[in-house]
Amino acid sequence: MVLITLIVDSRSKELMESNQAGPVYNFSAGPAALPKAVMEKAQAEFINWNELGTSVMEISHRSKPFIHVAQEAEQDLRDLLNIPSNYKVLFCQGGARAQFAAVPLNLLGHATKATYIDAGYWAESAVKEAKKYCETDVFNAKVTKEGKTAILPASEWKIDPESAYVHFCPNETIDGIEINDLPDTDKPIVADMSSTILSRQIDVSKYGVIYAGAQKNIGPAGICIAIVRDDLLDLASDVLPAILNYKVQAEQDSMFNTPPTFAWYLSGLVFKWLKGQGGVAAIEKINRAKAALLYNAIDASPFYRNNIHPDNRSLMNVPFQLAKPELDSTFLELAEARGLVSLQGHRVAGGMRASIYNAMTLEGVQALVDFMQEFEQQYA
Amino acid sequence: MVLITLIVDSRSKELMESNQAGPVYNFSAGPAALPKAVMEKAQAEFINWNELGTSVMEISHRSKPFIHVAQEAEQDLRDLLNIPSNYKVLFCQGGARAQFAAVPLNLLGHATKATYIDAGYWAESAVKEAKKYCETDVFNAKVTKEGKTAILPASEWKIDPESAYVHFCPNETIDGIEINDLPDTDKPIVADMSSTILSRQIDVSKYGVIYAGAQKNIGPAGICIAIVRDDLLDLASDVLPAILNYKVQAEQDSMFNTPPTFAWYLSGLVFKWLKGQGGVAAIEKINRAKAALLYNAIDASPFYRNNIHPDNRSLMNVPFQLAKPELDSTFLELAEARGLVSLQGHRVAGGMRASIYNAMTLEGVQALVDFMQEFEQQYA
Repeated sequence: MVLITLIVDSRSKELMESNQAGPVYNFSAGPAALPKAVMEKAQAEFINWNELGTSVMEISHRSKPFIHVAQEAEQDLRDLLNIPSNYKVLFCQGGARAQFAAVPLNLLGHATKATYIDAGYWAESAVKEAKKYCETDVFNAKVTKEGKTAILPASEWKIDPESAYVHFCPNETIDGIEINDLPDTDKPIVADMSSTILSRQIDVSKYGVIYAGAQKNIGPAGICIAIVRDDLLDLASDVLPAILNYKVQAEQDSMFNTPPTFAWYLSGLVFKWLKGQGGVAAIEKINRAKAALLYNAIDASPFYRNNIHPDNRSLMNVPFQLAKPELDSTFLELAEARGLVSLQGHRVAGGMRASIYNAMTLEGVQALVDFMQEFEQQYA
Repeated sequence: MVLITLIVDSRSKELMESNQAGPVYNFSAGPAALPKAVMEKAQAEFINWNELGTSVMEISHRSKPFIHVAQEAEQDLRDLLNIPSNYKVLFCQGGARAQFAAVPLNLLGHATKATYIDAGYWAESAVKEAKKYCETDVFNAKVTKEGKTAILPASEWKIDPESAYVHFCPNETIDGIEINDLPDTDKPIVADMSSTILSRQIDVSKYGVIYAGAQKNIGPAGICIAIVRDDLLDLASDVLPAILNYKVQAEQDSMFNTPPTFAWYLSGLVFKWLKGQGGVAAIEKINRAKAALLYNAIDASPFYRNNIHPDNRSLMNVPFQLAKPELDSTFLELAEARGLVSLQGHRVAGGMRASIYNAMTLEGVQALVDFMQEFEQQYA
């Protein structure tokens, strides 16, 4: 439980004391909560892994025990996402931001243009980086529908025929937007799935490249997965740093440089845990139930508001605003005292945001909904 | 203790059984052993850090508790290395391999050439990457002296006057070479200190850029430190990916993208531990005693051989060969059964290598020397 020092009025004191010894529910958008069972296993074997007398992070990445970890993690991810054999799975560094450069530098070939579908902050950040390397054909897919932000159907997205690829971000973590359809194109589709991967079923065979920073649904910050169709491995630019080169990393089993071994190992534990939960189809059901519970609570109340149209609401990141923004800090303090932590909205968006990645339980979302209703009763 | 299954003759069985329950001494070259006290602390607070009810890896990198971790780690490193205030300390991803590209892309400016001092495998790897971005003026500093490999004094290194900078690697981890002097130049000196940093005292003010992958003397794999003199921050190339841009990372306190927070935290614990040991001057004394113990044992025996001239022997990485290379695997198996692990030489070098980074104790080196002497008595 967080220790906080603040001057509170009697109402808030009551709310704060009502659940002081309860569990902590962590709604962080990333680095996000990891499954409890994974963390407990990692703690238990932290200094004596695999009976080696050392930690998994203290052995060579080229040792047999670590290569086993690496290969098993890859296979489990392949199983979970049903990744076809003509796709390479790369464990990279630098997060999605590194991929913003890696994508054009790996995929442009002789082309000078790429299409970027703009649906929010991260898509726009990818464009900024791509502009260093090519002409960006940006299609703004955001529209206002029934007073809320929505995304045009993919059939209406305009894609430049000269583009080397089409990039989009199916879950905008900050905006709280989800895109459920795919560009209608024969170009390679590139998706920043940092907040999508493993949250719902996807058909990998429709994509050219999928990449995802780990710190949402995969593992700790510091590792990034790239899933690359193998016909796209021969297009790299001469000025591409070797560590970002898909072909180099594919040929060296993601060990061109020393990989972040502990993060890789932890990701593997998360994959095993997810298989134990029944895989992506099973977690998707739970994720839909969690999201429905929270969005329904928001929609049922005049005190809370979410600005995204129901067609495009994120399954993973639920931003919401209070009718009285002057109560934001009180809301956050009292929530924290209840063990409901990391609910502050992103610094560029304000308000609140509940990120409900795979590791968040339905019970945790229920605890948040209960708190929101009590808070509304006392403060609305 | 490692479990191994092998068919052994009676001599080796005796050696194996002599110390089955002893401690494990890990001579890995990287990811290398971390201090025991650090690992125990990290384990104890693994799932409930700072009384938050979550791990340090499950909170936002922009939260106050993590920013405190980040700033304290930086300050402790500044204290340990006495880093002047006109140097930025960056916590990066991608390891030294990423820096092989980052250095020319950040430092060339309008220049088209850089000098690289070649003293071994890693210096040569840096050249390969730099060739993508500039003309490399490579000076081979290796010579044979009294039948062994040595490095020419820095006063004899030839540096092209048109070079933007001079790059060298003062500790060649694979070759087992150490360079103790500095290029005699007014160009910015750039050093790959992956295996040097924190092992001995250095004068940071003599350098333009120092970089170091963490997985030797800093922390786990997946984080890399760059120490950059601030007058070098304005030279970046247009094609430099933003995550490798020193200025971008400096302006954003190394949080342009989500940093590897757990690795940063663990590095901070290592810095605190090192301060507790008395700092770099104190650990240097221990490191010199450890290296002397091992090199003396090698030199005293006709059965073991190190090919580096005493003037340039690495303090951290001690490669050695057996007079009977056919016994290599027996040596490794019996050593492992004694708890002396990860002694296999690098795949490109063969033989043995004992990496004796800061976390390795004098007691561990003594255990290795004792084993080497026993092995020699039985097998020479």
